[in-house]
Amino acid sequence: MATFGLMEYDDAGPEVRAVYDDIRAVRQTDTINNFWKALAHDPATLRRTWESIKQIMAPGALDTLTKEMIYVAVSTTNQCGYCIASHTVSAQKAGMTPEMFAELMAVVGMANETNRLATGYQVEIDERFRTH
Amino acid sequence: MATFGLMEYDDAGPEVRAVYDDIRAVRQTDTINNFWKALAHDPATLRRTWESIKQIMAPGALDTLTKEMIYVAVSTTNQCGYCIASHTVSAQKAGMTPEMFAELMAVVGMANETNRLATGYQVEIDERFRTH
Amino acid sequence: MATFGLMEYDDAGPEVRAVYDDIRAVRQTDTINNFWKALAHDPATLRRTWESIKQIMAPGALDTLTKEMIYVAVSTTNQCGYCIASHTVSAQKAGMTPEMFAELMAVVGMANETNRLATGYQVEIDERFRTH
Amino acid sequence: MATFGLMEYDDAGPEVRAVYDDIRAVRQTDTINNFWKALAHDPATLRRTWESIKQIMAPGALDTLTKEMIYVAVSTTNQCGYCIASHTVSAQKAGMTPEMFAELMAVVGMANETNRLATGYQVEIDERFRTH
Amino acid sequence: MATFGLMEYDDAGPEVRAVYDDIRAVRQTDTINNFWKALAHDPATLRRTWESIKQIMAPGALDTLTKEMIYVAVSTTNQCGYCIASHTVSAQKAGMTPEMFAELMAVVGMANETNRLATGYQVEIDERFRTH
Amino acid sequence: MATFGLMEYDDAGPEVRAVYDDIRAVRQTDTINNFWKALAHDPATLRRTWESIKQIMAPGALDTLTKEMIYVAVSTTNQCGYCIASHTVSAQKAGMTPEMFAELMAVVGMANETNRLATGYQVEIDERFRTH
Repeated sequence: MATFGLMEYDDAGPEVRAVYDDIRAVRQTDTINNFWKALAHDPATLRRTWESIKQIMAPGALDTLTKEMIYVAVSTTNQCGYCIASHTVSAQKAGMTPEMFAELMAVVGMANETNRLATGYQVEIDERFRTH
Repeated sequence: MATFGLMEYDDAGPEVRAVYDDIRAVRQTDTINNFWKALAHDPATLRRTWESIKQIMAPGALDTLTKEMIYVAVSTTNQCGYCIASHTVSAQKAGMTPEMFAELMAVVGMANETNRLATGYQVEIDERFRTH
Repeated sequence: MATFGLMEYDDAGPEVRAVYDDIRAVRQTDTINNFWKALAHDPATLRRTWESIKQIMAPGALDTLTKEMIYVAVSTTNQCGYCIASHTVSAQKAGMTPEMFAELMAVVGMANETNRLATGYQVEIDERFRTH
Repeated sequence: MATFGLMEYDDAGPEVRAVYDDIRAVRQTDTINNFWKALAHDPATLRRTWESIKQIMAPGALDTLTKEMIYVAVSTTNQCGYCIASHTVSAQKAGMTPEMFAELMAVVGMANETNRLATGYQVEIDERFRTH
Repeated sequence: MATFGLMEYDDAGPEVRAVYDDIRAVRQTDTINNFWKALAHDPATLRRTWESIKQIMAPGALDTLTKEMIYVAVSTTNQCGYCIASHTVSAQKAGMTPEMFAELMAVVGMANETNRLATGYQVEIDERFRTH
Repeated sequence: MATFGLMEYDDAGPEVRAVYDDIRAVRQTDTINNFWKALAHDPATLRRTWESIKQIMAPGALDTLTKEMIYVAVSTTNQCGYCIASHTVSAQKAGMTPEMFAELMAVVGMANETNRLATGYQVEIDERFRTH
């Protein structure tokens, strides 16, 4: 189904293998998601995307669980079936319980609703929201 | 700018005033956001929306700060200017530091990018992501 | 603000004037919306868009009011400020009362919410929904 | 496929069963859509969503058919496969003929087109559209 | 799966057949995509859509390959599975190499990311971008 | 308006100044867009975003003009006012004529329309589109 197919480790050149090795090391797992295997046909994008993900998803002021839940929120808003499936599992691995998931979905649904009400009613931004 | 204008407390009927009073009590503030004042022209929607928000945004398995950051994530993805302005302030009031905001935005940006890469490359969902 | 400015009737060539004349005749008004004036810099697109709008928005199995409300629903979902402003006025001219507007917005908000819940929960399509 | 599976009546607790009973009574049917069965894993969201839908979709200034068509319009704009399948059937049950569907789709398509033309050409909102 | 099924040439009336004939002549192929076969249940929309596509996608200031890649970019941004599949093939037929596809996807991903960063950070439009 | 304001060169630390210097060198201009000045409050994101943009937007299998037009196409689809303003100017600097812009917009509008028609009619993907 993937446009150029999925590139397995055995068929990959050294640049792609290096990324696969790093993914395995950082994520402490042998599996490489289909997403990376599809992207591998463009090694430059594979590497840049993985480096960005590594940087962005590392725990910082926000922990990994929070970051994964934000990822699910965006993917759901965008209706991306692959990403919802993938990041729901990642969030669960990071500690997301069914109760957390339920609340996350409730907020995502409500936000998508009020975003449209605010714009549909052409509400002007309150002056006190302007910080600069 | 709002389609039917903004309804101030003094011009509101009892049903709307009741909601304004509750917003003030729950949020511990005198201010009523323009969003509610615009929605007040449909008291049924005002009441239902406020009751839902009260329920959904109350701390639970996820705390209020996390919920507000999810709200910012969705509003940013949907490009809703009003909601970004409003919920950025709410999240800051709930404890979001500039570092947290920066990481939140980085995740939102990255998720919007990889959502498109996954779909553009027509990546099939990994079997192990299917839980049911 | 418009990328190439707004083309007024007096500055327009015959192809654009013909479209402006038709808009005025069909809509029974002297005013030409900024949308058409901006599009006029590409006469082919102006003509094709106007001809499509004329065809699509004419009353048929659905009346004009219903069609304008659908237009508002889509524009709100897409967060298009210009189109919300423009079509809210068109819908009001076609007979949309404040009560209708309120119900329209409530449906639009709810649909945007349940669209995400359905996808976020990865709900499979019921077999009995498949008609072909 | 649903993240936590689909909860059947027999496996449900009293809170969920109460909602299923109400859905059956209001919709005059025995069937419970997969959407509700997936949501049932969060009884609070199931109940709140059903109560909102009941309120919002009841005939008022707009009849049920119009409301269902608006739902299809939003779901199509958002590319939600489940909701398009589900609400197309609901709209047909409410009286949507193939001619109505065709016109609905034509408007949805055109609105999604002109939304982008208006924004792409950076068209400023006409002063006479500003009502407040 | 298509709401009213797919209309084959043999089952089509003269208006639809005329469009199918024209598609075959213009595209130099015998095949009619499922998209047209689904749309054929509304001959007016089928004809109008085909006439628009013919006009818009013909080589002009932009060549066909560039236009097809823009089509893929929009379809990916909107997460339209059918259109991504269809226009990826069209673009390849117009000369899109795997390297071009990879760069196209990289731009689409990045644009979707920076769109959100710009809006999330509430960046005001630089004065020098205003041309009118 | 920007959430944390716009950081000018004189107020920036060495990490941000290094990025500003590089932008000026690569783009052969003294101006730093508001986008970068807003992002500068998170130097890590500023640097990562600039490095990605440099890589992705460099001419390759696709030239810079084509890439900038794809950027406008995505930004228009997403309704991002800042990005439309910014990249329209970038595309013009890269050689986009008014005729090219007109054709670009026509394709973007049409693609947004047919994306919804394909999904609204629930069209199944043609078998011959599946490459893997």
